Amino acid sequence: MLNFDLYNPVNYVFGKGQIAKLTDLVPKNTKILLAYGGGSIFKNGVYDQVKAALPNHDIVEFGGIEPNPRFETLMKAVEIIRAEKIGFILAVGGGSVIDGVKFISAAVNFEGDEADILKKRILFKDVSQVIPFGTVLTLPATGSEMNSGAVVTIEATQEKLTLGGSALFPVFSIVDPTVITSLPKRQLQNGVVDAFTHVMEQYLTYTHDALLQDRISESILQTLIEIGPDVVENPTDYKLASNFVWSATMALNGLIQKGVPSDWATHMIGHELTALYEIDHARTLAIIGPNLYRVMFDTKKEKLAQYGQRVWNIQGNSTEEIAEKAIEKTVEFFHKMGMKTKISENAENIEKTADFIVNRFEERGWKAMGEKQNITLEKVRAIVEMSY
Amino acid sequence: MLNFDLYNPVNYVFGKGQIAKLTDLVPKNTKILLAYGGGSIFKNGVYDQVKAALPNHDIVEFGGIEPNPRFETLMKAVEIIRAEKIGFILAVGGGSVIDGVKFISAAVNFEGDEADILKKRILFKDVSQVIPFGTVLTLPATGSEMNSGAVVTIEATQEKLTLGGSALFPVFSIVDPTVITSLPKRQLQNGVVDAFTHVMEQYLTYTHDALLQDRISESILQTLIEIGPDVVENPTDYKLASNFVWSATMALNGLIQKGVPSDWATHMIGHELTALYEIDHARTLAIIGPNLYRVMFDTKKEKLAQYGQRVWNIQGNSTEEIAEKAIEKTVEFFHKMGMKTKISENAENIEKTADFIVNRFEERGWKAMGEKQNITLEKVRAIVEMSY
Repeated sequence: MLNFDLYNPVNYVFGKGQIAKLTDLVPKNTKILLAYGGGSIFKNGVYDQVKAALPNHDIVEFGGIEPNPRFETLMKAVEIIRAEKIGFILAVGGGSVIDGVKFISAAVNFEGDEADILKKRILFKDVSQVIPFGTVLTLPATGSEMNSGAVVTIEATQEKLTLGGSALFPVFSIVDPTVITSLPKRQLQNGVVDAFTHVMEQYLTYTHDALLQDRISESILQTLIEIGPDVVENPTDYKLASNFVWSATMALNGLIQKGVPSDWATHMIGHELTALYEIDHARTLAIIGPNLYRVMFDTKKEKLAQYGQRVWNIQGNSTEEIAEKAIEKTVEFFHKMGMKTKISENAENIEKTADFIVNRFEERGWKAMGEKQNITLEKVRAIVEMSY
Repeated sequence: MLNFDLYNPVNYVFGKGQIAKLTDLVPKNTKILLAYGGGSIFKNGVYDQVKAALPNHDIVEFGGIEPNPRFETLMKAVEIIRAEKIGFILAVGGGSVIDGVKFISAAVNFEGDEADILKKRILFKDVSQVIPFGTVLTLPATGSEMNSGAVVTIEATQEKLTLGGSALFPVFSIVDPTVITSLPKRQLQNGVVDAFTHVMEQYLTYTHDALLQDRISESILQTLIEIGPDVVENPTDYKLASNFVWSATMALNGLIQKGVPSDWATHMIGHELTALYEIDHARTLAIIGPNLYRVMFDTKKEKLAQYGQRVWNIQGNSTEEIAEKAIEKTVEFFHKMGMKTKISENAENIEKTADFIVNRFEERGWKAMGEKQNITLEKVRAIVEMSY
């Protein structure tokens, strides 16, 4: 097992009716910025619940944080906080709103060009540097409600960049699973596949000594397999909803990555498919993941076999046979979750996709990725071409 | 799934060589109380490592915190902290030392009779009320290094009482699995069985909707079963040691209890066996647990069957058959871990044990316990008599 530090101070408040706890969780001695996205919170009743819990708070609203939140949009909120002397931010939304608020939190007191937070990957470790914030989650998938990382896009230069640091954990996150009842089926499908792939990025590497972490990862995968196909049909079923939402948090709150190697190449390649063709993030993962396992079969086959045996109960005569069947089972699961697992089923004029992606990676100086840094640009090309 | 709050701000620093990180983790702007137990830290090299990491810190030492730490002993440390104006405590030891330091932390600024912290179960929620503390774990089992609870005994009245509250999480805990290499085999056996039973108390209740928590509990049980018998023979094997120590923390750091019912009656009855006959805590759990499952079979059989199938791969024709085999497997495991699972194998003149325990519970006004509050005093009697 690799050495690790586990630090996650989020007060994670889970369950039906928990939004009412905002009354006590949001500080009363400062102005609040209520940050949200495209306005779905007005339709699903969450805005009303939030306002009802905060009758005596001094609130300034800031809407319009977009999916894949833009630096340019977020800087408008930063200016409002500076002008209005706001001391706490409440993010009400999904991963994009929460990610956006992490950037806002970090930028308000930042001295210098705020874009450098992203471009120079500045880590925020001191909570006195940032504006504290809490969240009310409305769309499970990214785990942003219980981690300290975020992804922000600079519109001007079309760069999708990360920020983070231990000062950027939410002070609290309220996670009421009933919020998913108003989500479109497509978003629920995406949420399940996104969470599933988050686990796979941290689990499906090579066999190692971190026995408990492997089993916890397998626990999340099994739970998502058990409830995923049903929850998208019956999001009002609380058993399904609560297990889905909690699994999505656990998939990316840092726990399962402790002491183990991780891959993340599926995300790195998938991000490019979103950039090129606006394919939903989760759908790019469903396209790339299984083909990455195929191309990197020699590296990953032992872990694929473990995954196949433990998560899918696959029997077989050899590591290779079980590993191959495990990939097939994964693709079947993605299909069951409504994914179309070829690029050509999700976009048109895709012939040069591999060239585009390999060129972009070359421009950035990326030579290899994955848990063994052996997913070279040649391998990336093979993975993308296999995905046409 | 039941509603829950998950809050655990401990900076948990895990792995080989991590004690050196004390240099940066322990504050330099205040005096430090270095608290420890019976002196094993002088033999196992941990004291030297701690001192080497803190060459420029102003340290006052306080040794002699006993197993089942005594209020009377701990109050001596409280007086030293008040007199010397100490601002941070470093607990170096196992669960007893860490539990003791939690009490010390709470008592220093407490106004009134410090015994009331225990007798009136005062919760500490405000970190400004307590003296901050960190830990270096030397004996895995209790999870105290990553939770905010503690058990302290008042010698004068022979009461074993609890304290806790979110202000009583360690600021950091350094957990180096190599510390177990110097532990006697008996303590290693106890640690595995203690951690195993901690999971069982939170898991082996009834079947419910918290699918992921069940699977995470099963993950910890499977890991302890996999590594337990070997780690007590080969504690220098880092794979075994690291999985054991991490499993013991995860068994009682609060995660697996979120959203689920819990039992804890095995502990409540077991505590009395320790009080009566000084049987090691873990050994009392190994005696009582399986008989509690037998006596409460009607309540617990579905969960026992789930446990049997998933953790022990037991096949069977009925819930009852699988559940019964699951209890047998548990006893076999405890035997393999060096436990003797009858009271009479651990103590003499035990004929009145059930009377003693039932009387004590009556005196305290306890009428029933367990996840359904259906372990009545009659059931307690039956469990204890079955354990003779």
